[in-house]
Amino acid sequence: MKKVTILDIAKELDITFSTVARALNDHPAISKNTKELVKAAAERLGYRKNKIASSLRSGKSNIIGVLVPSLDVSFFSSVVHGIESIMNQNGYSVLLYQSQESYKKEDKGIETLLNSRVDGVIASIAINREDSGTYEDIINRNIPLAFFDRSLDDLNAPSVTIDDYKGGYMATEHLIKAGYKNIVHITETRNLAIFKERMRGYKDALKAYGLPLNEDLILKGNLSLDFGKECVKNLTSRKIPFDAIFTLEDFTAMGVIQQLKVQHINIPHEVGIIGFANEAFGSLVSPTLSTIDQQTNRMGEEIALQFLKMLKAGDFYKSAPLRIKLDPILIIRESSQGPTWENI
Amino acid sequence: MKKVTILDIAKELDITFSTVARALNDHPAISKNTKELVKAAAERLGYRKNKIASSLRSGKSNIIGVLVPSLDVSFFSSVVHGIESIMNQNGYSVLLYQSQESYKKEDKGIETLLNSRVDGVIASIAINREDSGTYEDIINRNIPLAFFDRSLDDLNAPSVTIDDYKGGYMATEHLIKAGYKNIVHITETRNLAIFKERMRGYKDALKAYGLPLNEDLILKGNLSLDFGKECVKNLTSRKIPFDAIFTLEDFTAMGVIQQLKVQHINIPHEVGIIGFANEAFGSLVSPTLSTIDQQTNRMGEEIALQFLKMLKAGDFYKSAPLRIKLDPILIIRESSQGPTWENI
Repeated sequence: MKKVTILDIAKELDITFSTVARALNDHPAISKNTKELVKAAAERLGYRKNKIASSLRSGKSNIIGVLVPSLDVSFFSSVVHGIESIMNQNGYSVLLYQSQESYKKEDKGIETLLNSRVDGVIASIAINREDSGTYEDIINRNIPLAFFDRSLDDLNAPSVTIDDYKGGYMATEHLIKAGYKNIVHITETRNLAIFKERMRGYKDALKAYGLPLNEDLILKGNLSLDFGKECVKNLTSRKIPFDAIFTLEDFTAMGVIQQLKVQHINIPHEVGIIGFANEAFGSLVSPTLSTIDQQTNRMGEEIALQFLKMLKAGDFYKSAPLRIKLDPILIIRESSQGPTWENI
Repeated sequence: MKKVTILDIAKELDITFSTVARALNDHPAISKNTKELVKAAAERLGYRKNKIASSLRSGKSNIIGVLVPSLDVSFFSSVVHGIESIMNQNGYSVLLYQSQESYKKEDKGIETLLNSRVDGVIASIAINREDSGTYEDIINRNIPLAFFDRSLDDLNAPSVTIDDYKGGYMATEHLIKAGYKNIVHITETRNLAIFKERMRGYKDALKAYGLPLNEDLILKGNLSLDFGKECVKNLTSRKIPFDAIFTLEDFTAMGVIQQLKVQHINIPHEVGIIGFANEAFGSLVSPTLSTIDQQTNRMGEEIALQFLKMLKAGDFYKSAPLRIKLDPILIIRESSQGPTWENI
């Protein structure tokens, strides 16, 4: 049997859809007489009210808001999968908001989530954020807040991140062990702790293996495929000798690969490459891209579990927050097999 | 000057954070005496209330909910960018919910969005949905609903889709014109109109160019990289002659490419390939993947503009809904350059 809808009642009584909808919801603009007519018709036709239970009047929404820079980046979408999986198992729904790497949009996102009555917020901050700003408002409302990957450590909120220092060290050490000597590092001008940590790892690995630190080999810009291309053009036009590149993330590494191919520079024999973040395309491109995996799914699950604990505990910002650092994992693929065929 | 927070007030009075938060929000569980103490301390310390304006008491939330199968698929994340861009320009925020291709999660998503008091819902349905189900509840509440790409045409809601028949026809025609003769089509077992339309286009193109329809060359399964691999194994083990493959979408095409490479079958000279959807990785892989572009950004913008018109019009389901079909665009890359070197 076809379900009876509001439209059927409207047709039956020859009145508008919205009049029927409002009458059924006891809207004050509708006369008592009309309401009675509509309710009688609804009963006669066998109309049943919506299945959806409204939680508007209860204290809890069972909705968690997740604020991320961009879901185009598979690192973030993969962490979100981990969060959704644990949250759904525990009866929570997850709503997502993209900041597009803008702290202004991020502020708007916090406002939107709070006005949507979420029970809490899990976030990874925008690349250009410089203060804790609107995030304090979440804490001031005593609504639970937790961070993953990119966190604001001044705030009393738990976080799950990876050990970015260790990741930077591992990536650089791998290139050194593969036989590369003049290792470029491409990093960000903008002020994010995770990128600074990756660079610190790079510098310490060079030092540990007795390689000189050459500031000419550290390039700074705004991470993107195009910036990766520019870096290669820049290095080759300035005739700076280099035989490997460690980029702060994978999209920039992809730009490096594309430009090296254009200039007929062999990867990995003339130049070795390693990225960071293990984006989904890295195993599909040619040569396949070596990278650092950040245990994204586990990161999502861990932060969701911490968050559930917070929700249970109740008084969210009383004790020192738990800060979990996951270990990065080195993924060796074709792009960093060593400077000569003999090394493979 | 550092901003005074609720924590500062709590420390000052040596009471808990949540007591302060609740006192400031006039919570009934807090005594009048405590409330006065807290408010006096707040004033003394220079505490200012949250910047965020609550819209809870106004009729409108200015939030639009977007329900998509998966943001991992760049087709969907790209449409979402188009929607966000128009919506943000018009003062709306966008919250996202992933159905993970499950109609059950989709139902939960509708419930979540409605309970978050969104002003409307824009959706693309899950692959296994078979009836209009919970979507009717949106209409019955007289909340605006619109579809993109995958729509429920029984419902009186506007939609923006592309002409999938034309896309299927164009893809097949391109392979025929490039010189391929035994063209496989890989499609879905599940019941989505867009995939049927692509197959109809495939069949009509074969007919138009006088090529026989061979049912052995139509393979059905669940779209995925792995299914693409299986199809190649299946065709070669059964020794079915084929020289080109048109897949219903790009991930399956990627599986086809990977398996052909494993079996040392040359692309595009022994087998040509074209996908559908113009996923981001298609231009990064080797060989680069020919595909059908769906004008994602324009699709997002168009559906957002239709939606804004609906919001203005007020009585959402009175007149026949506008259904816009965009034209697909053929993207020719390396994977379909023709069966012999001479064709390039």
